[in-house]
Amino acid sequence: MPAYPLPPGSVIGVLGGGQLGRMLALAAARLGFRTVVLTPESDSGAAQVASRTICAAYDDDRALAELAEAADVVTFEFENVPAAVVAALESLGAAVAPGARALAVAQDRVDEKTFLNACRAPTVAFRAIETAADVRAGVEALGAPALLKTRRQGYDGKGQTWVESQADAGEAFARIGGQPAILEARAAFQRELSAIAARGRDGDISIYPLGENHHEGGILRRTVAPASVPTGVFDQAAAIAARILTSLEYVGVMGVELFALDDGHLLVNEIAPRVHNSGHWTLDGCEVDQFEQHVRAIAGWPLGPVTPLARVEMENLIGADVERWRELIKEEEARVWFYGKGEARPGRKMGHINRLRPLG
Amino acid sequence: MPAYPLPPGSVIGVLGGGQLGRMLALAAARLGFRTVVLTPESDSGAAQVASRTICAAYDDDRALAELAEAADVVTFEFENVPAAVVAALESLGAAVAPGARALAVAQDRVDEKTFLNACRAPTVAFRAIETAADVRAGVEALGAPALLKTRRQGYDGKGQTWVESQADAGEAFARIGGQPAILEARAAFQRELSAIAARGRDGDISIYPLGENHHEGGILRRTVAPASVPTGVFDQAAAIAARILTSLEYVGVMGVELFALDDGHLLVNEIAPRVHNSGHWTLDGCEVDQFEQHVRAIAGWPLGPVTPLARVEMENLIGADVERWRELIKEEEARVWFYGKGEARPGRKMGHINRLRPLG
Repeated sequence: MPAYPLPPGSVIGVLGGGQLGRMLALAAARLGFRTVVLTPESDSGAAQVASRTICAAYDDDRALAELAEAADVVTFEFENVPAAVVAALESLGAAVAPGARALAVAQDRVDEKTFLNACRAPTVAFRAIETAADVRAGVEALGAPALLKTRRQGYDGKGQTWVESQADAGEAFARIGGQPAILEARAAFQRELSAIAARGRDGDISIYPLGENHHEGGILRRTVAPASVPTGVFDQAAAIAARILTSLEYVGVMGVELFALDDGHLLVNEIAPRVHNSGHWTLDGCEVDQFEQHVRAIAGWPLGPVTPLARVEMENLIGADVERWRELIKEEEARVWFYGKGEARPGRKMGHINRLRPLG
Repeated sequence: MPAYPLPPGSVIGVLGGGQLGRMLALAAARLGFRTVVLTPESDSGAAQVASRTICAAYDDDRALAELAEAADVVTFEFENVPAAVVAALESLGAAVAPGARALAVAQDRVDEKTFLNACRAPTVAFRAIETAADVRAGVEALGAPALLKTRRQGYDGKGQTWVESQADAGEAFARIGGQPAILEARAAFQRELSAIAARGRDGDISIYPLGENHHEGGILRRTVAPASVPTGVFDQAAAIAARILTSLEYVGVMGVELFALDDGHLLVNEIAPRVHNSGHWTLDGCEVDQFEQHVRAIAGWPLGPVTPLARVEMENLIGADVERWRELIKEEEARVWFYGKGEARPGRKMGHINRLRPLG
């Protein structure tokens, strides 16, 4: 294990070559770190700005040995890093942050909600599902409609379906491939918020002002931050995030997706053990953005301030949205971020813009 | 010549591998551009974040052909790019910005001041020097002490010396190597300011709030911005910068170093046809920093806003200063920038910090 804080010139390893890895590499460079990216993708967005890229499968033993040798600390940009990969890196002497425990919890939706409830982070009621009969029994217990999701994998609305009635149970189970799943009660929520929280190696915790999220077709479309919420709601979110981070002995930035109920209470929808799309507003809205905060945390540096400097509306540029670039670059108040990706396939996040307004 | 505005995914070529090239590459990446750096230095700070590095001498024909082939537009991080290099790139079909004229003017101190005066940008009185006799005659005309500088090369106080009296003329001329020089009258200035100005391909001009500079041993030590100056002083600076940029049909960011005289008038000390150390405060003090502004300009994008978000004190970390990193990263209000350089030699700029305070 390296000695913390890591000095400038140290090397941050990143599993994953997408936009989150790219923005982590940019933040690391500001602080004087080098970045080595491991990704199976040739010409990835992260590789364009990394000091070095190892182009190989995540479970390629030789590539992992190279990464462990090169990097002082290794992090990741996606939560589906196989447990075996983290174990391999750790056995090779590499520090991995956030650790194996956070990944394990985030990779299985039943384990995730079980863990959350155990640390007093409230969620919707849920049932673990193995069979179509479990779905029927679950709908009886939780009420219809209920949301059926695969236990593992799936993002941006993939691998999930609504169960409209007990009669729909068999077909719904078939729609998600008849695999181990979770059935979730429908949350009567007013709006979706998210908390971008960080914990340093010293145990210090900080949380940015909340963002309010708007999805379209299961994909995050817009985040407005700081969200207008009563102080009590922010305090609730901060307390929930702190319990989660502390329970996991977490190091780094975590995205905590929340449902704000009509009665003012918050439920946790899911956690992402990494920097998060709903935190992109911090890139232009805060002195220290979520990417720098993550790098500071894993490098054993003190966390930076989370004070907002502006009110931001973040808009994702998805698929063909990016073709609007000529208009977007003319907008005086719009800061544009493009991810260096080639083809603008439908549903692919190609960039985002942060529209800035004065605070207050 | 490429069609402007350049779309995201285009390639920016940069001559030079130092910190300015590094921060240009970081800004270019945010906007979705790739960067190809040409530098003779192996393992340069810019190479650590560039998409590609061509490691060769600046006048290496094959390297220049590679760069011209790869880049949609080429820029530079230092003003002593040989004219032949720009000519070679242009003959290979590469667009170079800012252009050959700005470089020529900035490379020769006599031509620079002659040009400045011709476009009504006031400077100290000066004389072109070829011989020790010219120095003596110059001191008689301009008064002692006067500042003797080589016509070409020299930065951070190198290649210059004070001439204390006519009797000192011969020795002073020898101290700077007996080469073609400029003799400058001493400016009775109150303080040193700088204007970071930009001109887009559409002829639009913008100027950041002025910075106040403090040098030590000929090297910039601190910049405070926005500097407290009467509106009239800012307007004067803006008018001077606009005349310079327009006269040169300049494209990109320029640093204009100014002396503020006791009577409220400004003189131009020198111009730098590139992003400038005294503009590093914009990295954390403005929505769009000078590096993004430069990239926007040369890519034919509209210029971004120059509104300040915070009051910044920028401090250069020179040589062994960088060893204070453990203390600096603990400062809540200090944003740190390290340049990825190896050895902390005396006088070498290793990084800088921006200390932020609320505006007003």
